[in-house]
Amino acid sequence: MLSILALPRPGEPSSEVKPDELPALLQSAGAVAWVRCLAPTDPDLSWLQGTFGFHPLTIEDCRQRNQRPKFEPYDGYAFIVLFALSWAGDALETTEIHCFLTPHCLITVEDRDSPAVAAVWQRMHQAPDLMQRGADFVLYAVADAVVDTFFELVDSFEESIDDIEERIFAPQAESVQPLIFRRRNLLIAIRRAIGPMRDVFNAILNRHLPLIRDPHLLYFRDLYDHTVLIYELLEAERERLSNALEVHLSHISNTLNQVMKRLTAIATIFMPLTFLSGLFGMNFEHLPFQSLWAMVIALLSMVIIPGAMLLWMWRARWF
Amino acid sequence: MLSILALPRPGEPSSEVKPDELPALLQSAGAVAWVRCLAPTDPDLSWLQGTFGFHPLTIEDCRQRNQRPKFEPYDGYAFIVLFALSWAGDALETTEIHCFLTPHCLITVEDRDSPAVAAVWQRMHQAPDLMQRGADFVLYAVADAVVDTFFELVDSFEESIDDIEERIFAPQAESVQPLIFRRRNLLIAIRRAIGPMRDVFNAILNRHLPLIRDPHLLYFRDLYDHTVLIYELLEAERERLSNALEVHLSHISNTLNQVMKRLTAIATIFMPLTFLSGLFGMNFEHLPFQSLWAMVIALLSMVIIPGAMLLWMWRARWF
Amino acid sequence: MLSILALPRPGEPSSEVKPDELPALLQSAGAVAWVRCLAPTDPDLSWLQGTFGFHPLTIEDCRQRNQRPKFEPYDGYAFIVLFALSWAGDALETTEIHCFLTPHCLITVEDRDSPAVAAVWQRMHQAPDLMQRGADFVLYAVADAVVDTFFELVDSFEESIDDIEERIFAPQAESVQPLIFRRRNLLIAIRRAIGPMRDVFNAILNRHLPLIRDPHLLYFRDLYDHTVLIYELLEAERERLSNALEVHLSHISNTLNQVMKRLTAIATIFMPLTFLSGLFGMNFEHLPFQSLWAMVIALLSMVIIPGAMLLWMWRARWF
Amino acid sequence: MLSILALPRPGEPSSEVKPDELPALLQSAGAVAWVRCLAPTDPDLSWLQGTFGFHPLTIEDCRQRNQRPKFEPYDGYAFIVLFALSWAGDALETTEIHCFLTPHCLITVEDRDSPAVAAVWQRMHQAPDLMQRGADFVLYAVADAVVDTFFELVDSFEESIDDIEERIFAPQAESVQPLIFRRRNLLIAIRRAIGPMRDVFNAILNRHLPLIRDPHLLYFRDLYDHTVLIYELLEAERERLSNALEVHLSHISNTLNQVMKRLTAIATIFMPLTFLSGLFGMNFEHLPFQSLWAMVIALLSMVIIPGAMLLWMWRARWF
Amino acid sequence: MLSILALPRPGEPSSEVKPDELPALLQSAGAVAWVRCLAPTDPDLSWLQGTFGFHPLTIEDCRQRNQRPKFEPYDGYAFIVLFALSWAGDALETTEIHCFLTPHCLITVEDRDSPAVAAVWQRMHQAPDLMQRGADFVLYAVADAVVDTFFELVDSFEESIDDIEERIFAPQAESVQPLIFRRRNLLIAIRRAIGPMRDVFNAILNRHLPLIRDPHLLYFRDLYDHTVLIYELLEAERERLSNALEVHLSHISNTLNQVMKRLTAIATIFMPLTFLSGLFGMNFEHLPFQSLWAMVIALLSMVIIPGAMLLWMWRARWF
Repeated sequence: MLSILALPRPGEPSSEVKPDELPALLQSAGAVAWVRCLAPTDPDLSWLQGTFGFHPLTIEDCRQRNQRPKFEPYDGYAFIVLFALSWAGDALETTEIHCFLTPHCLITVEDRDSPAVAAVWQRMHQAPDLMQRGADFVLYAVADAVVDTFFELVDSFEESIDDIEERIFAPQAESVQPLIFRRRNLLIAIRRAIGPMRDVFNAILNRHLPLIRDPHLLYFRDLYDHTVLIYELLEAERERLSNALEVHLSHISNTLNQVMKRLTAIATIFMPLTFLSGLFGMNFEHLPFQSLWAMVIALLSMVIIPGAMLLWMWRARWF
Repeated sequence: MLSILALPRPGEPSSEVKPDELPALLQSAGAVAWVRCLAPTDPDLSWLQGTFGFHPLTIEDCRQRNQRPKFEPYDGYAFIVLFALSWAGDALETTEIHCFLTPHCLITVEDRDSPAVAAVWQRMHQAPDLMQRGADFVLYAVADAVVDTFFELVDSFEESIDDIEERIFAPQAESVQPLIFRRRNLLIAIRRAIGPMRDVFNAILNRHLPLIRDPHLLYFRDLYDHTVLIYELLEAERERLSNALEVHLSHISNTLNQVMKRLTAIATIFMPLTFLSGLFGMNFEHLPFQSLWAMVIALLSMVIIPGAMLLWMWRARWF
Repeated sequence: MLSILALPRPGEPSSEVKPDELPALLQSAGAVAWVRCLAPTDPDLSWLQGTFGFHPLTIEDCRQRNQRPKFEPYDGYAFIVLFALSWAGDALETTEIHCFLTPHCLITVEDRDSPAVAAVWQRMHQAPDLMQRGADFVLYAVADAVVDTFFELVDSFEESIDDIEERIFAPQAESVQPLIFRRRNLLIAIRRAIGPMRDVFNAILNRHLPLIRDPHLLYFRDLYDHTVLIYELLEAERERLSNALEVHLSHISNTLNQVMKRLTAIATIFMPLTFLSGLFGMNFEHLPFQSLWAMVIALLSMVIIPGAMLLWMWRARWF
Repeated sequence: MLSILALPRPGEPSSEVKPDELPALLQSAGAVAWVRCLAPTDPDLSWLQGTFGFHPLTIEDCRQRNQRPKFEPYDGYAFIVLFALSWAGDALETTEIHCFLTPHCLITVEDRDSPAVAAVWQRMHQAPDLMQRGADFVLYAVADAVVDTFFELVDSFEESIDDIEERIFAPQAESVQPLIFRRRNLLIAIRRAIGPMRDVFNAILNRHLPLIRDPHLLYFRDLYDHTVLIYELLEAERERLSNALEVHLSHISNTLNQVMKRLTAIATIFMPLTFLSGLFGMNFEHLPFQSLWAMVIALLSMVIIPGAMLLWMWRARWF
Repeated sequence: MLSILALPRPGEPSSEVKPDELPALLQSAGAVAWVRCLAPTDPDLSWLQGTFGFHPLTIEDCRQRNQRPKFEPYDGYAFIVLFALSWAGDALETTEIHCFLTPHCLITVEDRDSPAVAAVWQRMHQAPDLMQRGADFVLYAVADAVVDTFFELVDSFEESIDDIEERIFAPQAESVQPLIFRRRNLLIAIRRAIGPMRDVFNAILNRHLPLIRDPHLLYFRDLYDHTVLIYELLEAERERLSNALEVHLSHISNTLNQVMKRLTAIATIFMPLTFLSGLFGMNFEHLPFQSLWAMVIALLSMVIIPGAMLLWMWRARWF
């Protein structure tokens, strides 16, 4: 589905136009247009290739998806793939946003309606002064909205890690492991998206393409800073999770150690007692069962032996 | 075994030719040929060296195999080694594809029939317009088919890791370890192939050899992107597996902890009981065996002591 | 809240001036001013933007905070973000110090009163010869005070790690784990601040901006050295903590091993004894309960069997 | 001990000459010589320094040994240290081969007779056409033989790791640990040799010394490729060993878990039974020992209780 | 304390001079001096700053110590910080050696008498031909002695690790952990010193300062090689220690596993036996205590049951 927002001339209001009106409109100096292509069909992609002459490889990328964020300069245009992430329940949903930047026109191809881009689309309808700054500034606005989706992710991430950290040393800590497991897998997925995004903005900064005018480079430097910050935040979260898991493993071992010491203490105290009582439970007639003294000695030894052992364990800091 | 597919002149159909016809054919401007050498014999390699004058070191490489993916420019030609991977049962099978690229001819030397290259060979028979684009484009077609074999591997890999992840927290998780072990070894093997492949395409992009014409460089940039993507996917899989193993180890420790707590609880409850019953099983005649009160106290203590201990354990959150 | 310290002319004393006096004052050659803006309000930021013409993105950064340490050259000025860390109880408190360096004026924007910067502010009041060296030297003085806060942190860190290390091999080592856990998280946080700080000073050294005069570059090189030293100290502390945790885990396992060996030894000795006493506690009438020899043999075996086992265990180095 | 193999003029046979004949011989254009110095004595080294004017530092290196593989260009000659490894029983033996390359002469100083170099020395006697290609080609032949010693090591290494991997999941896996331990230490030692060797060949490729003629650079590129391949193979082996050790540790924990579950099950079943039998072994006269019903109930409970527990354990998937 | 060794003119003997004689002496061409300042006092440092005009930051560094090894070129001189390490009992002692290199004079500032530097100081008194080679050669001699202290450390280190490795698989291995712990911490400390030292010599090699004459650069390249070698040795030791700790942890787990299997076997054999003996120790009158057959069956089952279990365990490779 193709929607086109066009600003025919600086100072005029922007409005949606039909695809066949676009070529004429782009002739006039100062015209800026944004072609938004949602869930592209084959005719949509053919129209793009026919109208703008994009390289078959880039059109193929739009069709196949499953790219990685990248920046590729071509003759007369640039091809940029951005990833917007969002929560779908407890899983991550990745929306690939394929952008073509030409001198007067930005084309975005999304496989699914991304709320982040939709919000920019609305804002552009209401603020023609933004669009007037050029197609590269529209690209910046889209990319800024996409990068902001990562900040939201990282925030919710930090909260869930805070939650995990509070539960590590709890007595019933077993439910922490699936949580750590899932968080780490999510981190791997987010990092795989933000790392190449950072490279995209770095490439934009260093290539000095005429497509992106110098005063707007500062805005892309700002985006680059944001992606670096997100990457560093994710690295820090990753280290916190590893820290949590390692210390947790050591904590479990420690608890196990305590439990075993207790079991050993119990066995150490009761096994001799049980043996003693069994000894005097034997039916040999020659055992001194009639003697009061023997009984007193037997019973006393059942008090003194465990008492001595408890004292010794306490001294040996067994507990 | 040598097979040669030649396109004598642009616009004409391609056809298989005999080795001795090749030199004459390559004289004509616009001619393109692909020499495919399967399971090369010594005469085959001598013919190659005699006809094209390749450096003895490269011919030696074709003979010995066990190279790594590499790109080596020589005077007038380039030597490229690619690795195609495929499953042979549960193990990986590596097929080395040694390519010589001359201005008008691509020579591929395979130690074993690779299905990926065979499919390109079929396609070239039917589509002379592809071959017409030059020997460098034929190289691209071969390399593209080889890189695609990695995507299939990675896909089947992801599925098997999904399967492992579902079983980590299962009660009978012991069968997970050999699976993780084998997957990690496979990952090491695949990474050893794709890492140098990425370097090969990067070298092709940066050397600006006249052998590869500028419009075709974009296609190799696409291949480079694919290898980078595969490498990143493998890295992510590797981290997922490490994550799974580490959390699994911590989960086992936790389970062990639970089991030991249970054992300790059982011993703590029954050891005093057994001792008490043994105490009154002693045969001393002075023990108050006739007294009903003594018996009631003994039996009551056998109810109260474990009851109190259970209460205490429950309060101490032992279970 | 805006405070302005100005030195109208070299050799004169410095004094606080009102915001509306600043533009005129900065006209005179040799004037140096430091605008300190604490907990900036919107009017403060508007005044900054109006008076100095700073880029909207940098003003936006001052409003939003949550940046990372960075250095950004703009036309005619540089924007520098520094992080000062301090302890707030047991947690770290980060104060972001946003600095604008113009040829004759330093503007610092702090969200909260940083003791480090406040001390420099006091010093500048009393030592006009420092301020006379230029706005870049004032920036150095501020940055030096900020970097010194890290040295204090690292010192207190080293002490707490020394303390942890002493307790690793103690019998009651369980309290070490939460300590290691918290220290490692703090390290992650400090490293996230000092790493980009180092990059900031490195960028200042390598950009050769006219804003920072050559003789003062040596001072920034000194700061760069300090940040490198802090980073290396933190790395060393991180490795010490990892070392402590890994060895601690191995130590716990070892202790557990000892405990289990002891339990096994006890069970090995008393289980056969208890069985023997139970055997002769059976009530079968055909058992030789009247025989003195049988009793002596039974009792002797209860001495010899555990004695032999103890000897064997001692030989097998079980203890 | 000095041996000198000299080729006085291209086309003539090579022959061994005396040290004092060498200077005159090297005057003639096209002469090539290889001075092999085994277990160098002080007079040998003095003669080298006097005849060729080598820098005292390099002579000192030959005397002291314990260098690392390195490449150092000097005025008029290059100093190259290579490491040849071989098995001496179960340990690695390192032979340092110090090479001086001058325009017409290669000097190799070995502390002990290396079989790899000795084989090249034999080959050079029989094939004067090899020596005729120059001193740099003789260096290549030596280096090639040295690099081949690593391939043999890696091959035997792979076999021993295959062997280890097969034993990880065996029930009696305890003997695997010393094997893994020794393999990893060997890997560290081999990597310490091959890493700098790779740098040596890389330096030779990039320095473009006139000592090594351009057509021979391809041969050194081949050696560089070999060292890279060996390094990658070693990395892969290292990862396989780490994989084996980590999974093995997790497997041991798992086995321990199973053993403990079994022990807990046994204790859970027999402890109540033993208590029950002890209960009715008490000698209280008021216990219903005459009642047949009491006995039947007691005996039945000794069947039903463990039966119920087994059922419950089986349902809880305890086994 | 200042001591000055001066060589007024090449060929003359060197002698100690007073501080106030130094300026005049340094006027003459070819003069070389070494100012050694031990445990510097404030007047010493002021004299240095006054006489040579060193930058206040470098004087401040000499006063504060706690630097890291570094190389800083200034106008007309270079400032170099080296670290000499030595054993003080079981701990490391770091001596910072701050060096100023001017064209004709080397100034070394040590906080404590370093034996390494003291030995060079003695040698310079006796060998004026060494000093005659210039102040940069004196710096080399000092640095060489300092670097040699690391070789001694590494040697003693290797021995202690050999010792640890021998004890890993010993039955009483618990004492290994504190040793590994301390060695690893020492390694961290040594690496923190040698890493920046390596960078110092690398910087000297690459800066091409006129202060260090070209023929002497080779000597500094040799020092650089030594620091690289030490760094690699330390890396290898670190990996060996990690290897030892990891395998040791796995070995402990394995031993624990064996111990638990033994305990389980003992419990499995004796618990049913104890139960059986208890069963026939019950006092029910209806039990067949008079029957010889019952007794024989009971006693036989006490032989057959454990016999069968032992057989089964042996078959299941439990031992």
